[in-house]
Amino acid sequence: MPLVRIDMIAGRAAADVAAISQAVHQAMVECLNVPRRDRFQVITEHAPGRLVFNPAYLEVPRTEGIVLIQVFLSGGRDEAQKRAFYARAAQLLTEGAGMRPEDVTIALAENTRADWSFGNGRAQYLEMPKEQWR
Amino acid sequence: MPLVRIDMIAGRAAADVAAISQAVHQAMVECLNVPRRDRFQVITEHAPGRLVFNPAYLEVPRTEGIVLIQVFLSGGRDEAQKRAFYARAAQLLTEGAGMRPEDVTIALAENTRADWSFGNGRAQYLEMPKEQWR
Amino acid sequence: MPLVRIDMIAGRAAADVAAISQAVHQAMVECLNVPRRDRFQVITEHAPGRLVFNPAYLEVPRTEGIVLIQVFLSGGRDEAQKRAFYARAAQLLTEGAGMRPEDVTIALAENTRADWSFGNGRAQYLEMPKEQWR
Repeated sequence: MPLVRIDMIAGRAAADVAAISQAVHQAMVECLNVPRRDRFQVITEHAPGRLVFNPAYLEVPRTEGIVLIQVFLSGGRDEAQKRAFYARAAQLLTEGAGMRPEDVTIALAENTRADWSFGNGRAQYLEMPKEQWR
Repeated sequence: MPLVRIDMIAGRAAADVAAISQAVHQAMVECLNVPRRDRFQVITEHAPGRLVFNPAYLEVPRTEGIVLIQVFLSGGRDEAQKRAFYARAAQLLTEGAGMRPEDVTIALAENTRADWSFGNGRAQYLEMPKEQWR
Repeated sequence: MPLVRIDMIAGRAAADVAAISQAVHQAMVECLNVPRRDRFQVITEHAPGRLVFNPAYLEVPRTEGIVLIQVFLSGGRDEAQKRAFYARAAQLLTEGAGMRPEDVTIALAENTRADWSFGNGRAQYLEMPKEQWR
């Protein structure tokens, strides 16, 4: 169910981009109760001047290796789950995708179960029993 | 009032992209009470590896013809309207834009009337009588 | 804390793009209580047919100079602040970035303090005292 937009400055190797994609998804599966097959991401690379960031906000030293990860997902995760997700994503992106933890920037945006259609013109999350919600 | 982001893998003919744009808008006019002139869309084509999707989540068989349609709009539509929109969008995209219904993926995100400015530095939806809200 | 997506049709001079980026940020600092260093923007230029807009919705005459500004930010700003932001952004973009006020289109989307991680896998806004929230 989440739709994830991942924005970065162009220049990474294809394997690194793929590793970033995988690490973000893995952290969502582990910490946000997202099914493994529920993977929908839009990855966009930008020219340097087009991804604007402050390299020191909140005393976190960021570099041009910054990645902005915006996750649109149904509401229902609590603060503890969100915190766990941030921590795990930073860990996986550092260990597996060559990132600096300071460059992992995440923003969530919540909607509801009625706000999703996964094909065939249907609202699948309204059709399944609540017990299957994830 | 809606702002629509449409993401797809590059390679479609210009006429097909235009037909997708039109079909999405037409379904919003018919089912979500959107004025015909209220059309604002950002269409982005991506290299294959940059639009990541699972080809089987929820047993819907997707292909690289997948289109992600994200609609930002004011709250107020009920579940029946949203369901009608999903169904009509899939129908119009299939009939008029050469898409497979399985490849029509939609996510909504709601905000409020105060969250929009349509030019000239004004909050037009706060200035009009409620009867004109759509 | 805000994440700002700025979409426009390609063709502007680099200096004009930078001026647009700066004007939007300045208006947020002045009117939305955003810290000056809290600047995160994704600027994307599109081919003409890929940014679709109605040139007359709500009787505002728009041109291909249109800029779509989408601001994701924590909730808490009231209507007066939002109105002030729209007005100031249009003013600064007109005076400093060569835009027509009719072409300044803005959409806000709110989330919560728990929805942000600014690096190092932490939820910084949950760790700071409320008095420091902005």
